[in-house]
Amino acid sequence: MRIARFSIDGTVGFGVVEGDRSATAPADADDLVLDIIKGHPFGDFTTTGRKVPLGKVRLLPPVLPSKVVAIGRNYAEHAAELGNEVPERPIAFFKPSTSVIGPGDPITYPAFSTEVHHEAELAVVIGRMCREVPPERVPDVILGYTCANDITARDVQKAEKQWARAKGFDGSCPLGPWIETALDPADLAITCTVNGELRQAGRTAEMIHSISDLIVHITEAMTLLPGDVLLTGTPAGVGPVTAGDEVAVSIEGIGTLTNQVVSRS
Amino acid sequence: MRIARFSIDGTVGFGVVEGDRSATAPADADDLVLDIIKGHPFGDFTTTGRKVPLGKVRLLPPVLPSKVVAIGRNYAEHAAELGNEVPERPIAFFKPSTSVIGPGDPITYPAFSTEVHHEAELAVVIGRMCREVPPERVPDVILGYTCANDITARDVQKAEKQWARAKGFDGSCPLGPWIETALDPADLAITCTVNGELRQAGRTAEMIHSISDLIVHITEAMTLLPGDVLLTGTPAGVGPVTAGDEVAVSIEGIGTLTNQVVSRS
Repeated sequence: MRIARFSIDGTVGFGVVEGDRSATAPADADDLVLDIIKGHPFGDFTTTGRKVPLGKVRLLPPVLPSKVVAIGRNYAEHAAELGNEVPERPIAFFKPSTSVIGPGDPITYPAFSTEVHHEAELAVVIGRMCREVPPERVPDVILGYTCANDITARDVQKAEKQWARAKGFDGSCPLGPWIETALDPADLAITCTVNGELRQAGRTAEMIHSISDLIVHITEAMTLLPGDVLLTGTPAGVGPVTAGDEVAVSIEGIGTLTNQVVSRS
Repeated sequence: MRIARFSIDGTVGFGVVEGDRSATAPADADDLVLDIIKGHPFGDFTTTGRKVPLGKVRLLPPVLPSKVVAIGRNYAEHAAELGNEVPERPIAFFKPSTSVIGPGDPITYPAFSTEVHHEAELAVVIGRMCREVPPERVPDVILGYTCANDITARDVQKAEKQWARAKGFDGSCPLGPWIETALDPADLAITCTVNGELRQAGRTAEMIHSISDLIVHITEAMTLLPGDVLLTGTPAGVGPVTAGDEVAVSIEGIGTLTNQVVSRS
């Protein structure tokens, strides 16, 4: 099931995306409708049968995470391209709620950086409050998957020992277009294009630390709340974007998250 | 003005602490009453004249931050004691909302560490949504100040490049006992005791990067929301705590934040 969060006429809701399963992005909206959800996707919910064409709504970030926990250097080729070793332990860092934007929202080029990079990533959406999750319970705490772009001020990342500013600035966490709840994430194609040109292409099977290992590792330390998001690292091919660029993250079985980079007005 | 957040009989509210200004902690509750606030401390509010003895309520974390932005190595002697250089740029990292606990709440010793340290810090409570704050506007975005303990799994901090787990685990951010809104933070005594024994003693005047510089630095990158908290670094003298210890952070003009370390049950 594909669950989207949207606004229409000033109200916000969730809906189940219906229509052509091969339609991967809001741009294919002609074929897609939203069946409006009664209740909340994190609890019991039903669909109402009231339907809205996807083209009539504005898609929002599919969740409002209290925190995004992200993982650095989780694909060996990407670690190598930045001259880093593959870390023995996952490198976990936070992106704050204020960094989250939705599909189609602008990525505003920040004033404190001159080298902003795209990083296409598979995002895991947590479905229930959890802590100290044993491996066999990991599937129970996952609601589904979406696409993410771990936008990074690479120059600032190199200059500052912790990455709060480099990876936590406003707009640095595009999420969307929707949550796919029925998906085996083990071996999915993940790509990033800039203005239609392929920049990153990998498979989730190349992750060094699996989704299960990451959730065990993180919840050893902290509680994850419904709607919290785990970013699982980016494959090789990261590179700069500039104002005017259109960046698209596509993941097999989920869809495409597209955002435009804009200069500060 | 001292603003506390509290619960009584299952309801949560804010109140203005009245009584002996030299009373620094809930333990001095005999002398203190709460004048219950109507409205919210981040907006327009009045006191109702309805008063509750402080001894009758449970104090809560004085704010529920969407994020805590903390600063590493902001006192030269503390940087030196851990064998670190003083950083040219502030080292900014996040502690998530799930790490926040209140005065008197237990600090549960985490299973993934065997070396948990106390770090007494002055906490700045943000009063209004802000971004790209110029130095002259910094006072306008500050609601007040409270005490914080930047509890750190030192062994994990050394083993992991980013500090999400080492400084972001559940209970690693005690805040309280209340927010002091009328305070010049420039040169305040800050201490930490463990079981009554003095471990840390410094003055906020020793900070390398000032509160103003830190808020400018952080808001260059990201929006701060009302209730977000800035931790300003710890003076020298950090060290381990173990289950059973009582840790108390005192800051001149604010009060004392006391928490007990407990073992996992």
